[in-house]
Amino acid sequence: MKIKARNFGSWFAVLLAVSQLAIAAESPGQEFKPFAEKHVILQLSDQANHAVVLDTANNLIKNYGGPDMIDIEIVTFGKGVSLLFDESQHQVRIASLVENGVRFYVCQNTLDTMERTHGSRPKINPVAIKVQAGVAHIIDRVDEGYTLIRP
Amino acid sequence: MKIKARNFGSWFAVLLAVSQLAIAAESPGQEFKPFAEKHVILQLSDQANHAVVLDTANNLIKNYGGPDMIDIEIVTFGKGVSLLFDESQHQVRIASLVENGVRFYVCQNTLDTMERTHGSRPKINPVAIKVQAGVAHIIDRVDEGYTLIRP
Amino acid sequence: MKIKARNFGSWFAVLLAVSQLAIAAESPGQEFKPFAEKHVILQLSDQANHAVVLDTANNLIKNYGGPDMIDIEIVTFGKGVSLLFDESQHQVRIASLVENGVRFYVCQNTLDTMERTHGSRPKINPVAIKVQAGVAHIIDRVDEGYTLIRP
Repeated sequence: MKIKARNFGSWFAVLLAVSQLAIAAESPGQEFKPFAEKHVILQLSDQANHAVVLDTANNLIKNYGGPDMIDIEIVTFGKGVSLLFDESQHQVRIASLVENGVRFYVCQNTLDTMERTHGSRPKINPVAIKVQAGVAHIIDRVDEGYTLIRP
Repeated sequence: MKIKARNFGSWFAVLLAVSQLAIAAESPGQEFKPFAEKHVILQLSDQANHAVVLDTANNLIKNYGGPDMIDIEIVTFGKGVSLLFDESQHQVRIASLVENGVRFYVCQNTLDTMERTHGSRPKINPVAIKVQAGVAHIIDRVDEGYTLIRP
Repeated sequence: MKIKARNFGSWFAVLLAVSQLAIAAESPGQEFKPFAEKHVILQLSDQANHAVVLDTANNLIKNYGGPDMIDIEIVTFGKGVSLLFDESQHQVRIASLVENGVRFYVCQNTLDTMERTHGSRPKINPVAIKVQAGVAHIIDRVDEGYTLIRP
């Protein structure tokens, strides 16, 4: 009887370990999109690719069957942050993606550098979520299970 | 005896769970290259990098000991699709890589946009495999265990 | 008694399998930075991004709480190798990052191609670690658990 009890405890430990591995591998971003099977970071760090990144987000939402089925973050740093300037020409498309649950991030390190270089800090679209370092945010998300794409 | 039998069933469940985790982590692309230990996506979405991507594929095949040892997909979208236009200057090198088991993919969303913009659809190299969304194909492959590189 | 012994052996096998999965997932690069929780490859294959990659490495070290907390490799190939030419303007910043444990890699395939094309082989910064194929090095590191970023 004592042996059985000890066995049960050991079993429980192994099952817990196995299930934790499974959970770690399978469920990033559950707080944002509980039904999403895909969790994606689109990296934007390049002046040239602004429209391409927005097109990619739209295509992915269509491809996976709607905004609940895919969890997308667009993380900007370096030359990519100007997508989130308050006067960006892409405001309407950004607003429409935000309504579909896409999250936009802007790198404070980049804005700090811009402020030091140009003497003033660019005004940022209020939908943008501020993170200190865009690259660190990406690394943390990839650790959680997000797939990083730089379109 | 009954306890032993129950134990055996539980053991089997745990071993199955562990081995499934191991399989999920270790064997993408077995249907293409059963002996390959590396499974790689080369992303081409940029006009400038066509030759670089073909060079990279050749170098990888040499580096890992031959075409059976590495499983490579070259996925084109955006400005990268012109590598797979029927009149591409890289036809001979593409054919040689295909003979070595490299698979080339072309994004239909990109071709649809080109057709809307230019009024005609580019003719595509018949070796190209068509996928609706190049980025979605990449995301699915990364989920299967492929490593994504954008050379 | 015999059954218990056999059970112990089986238990040990399962625990070993589970712990190996856990180790494989959690501890790349332990030989370089035993306390680092993040293991990152910064890819440099582009003439334009030299300063950006060095800035990124510095920001990451600051962001994660110092050089012991993050393990960074900067892997250069293609147009990125000139960062590691002996006359590079970035020598001082490179030396300072090396002191903080950042490792710089240079792709021999790229240098071989340059030698064939230009008739001479560029002199390389002695801090650079030589690998035959930069992309293969990246693939192997990602397999070990490193996160690949191309800033």
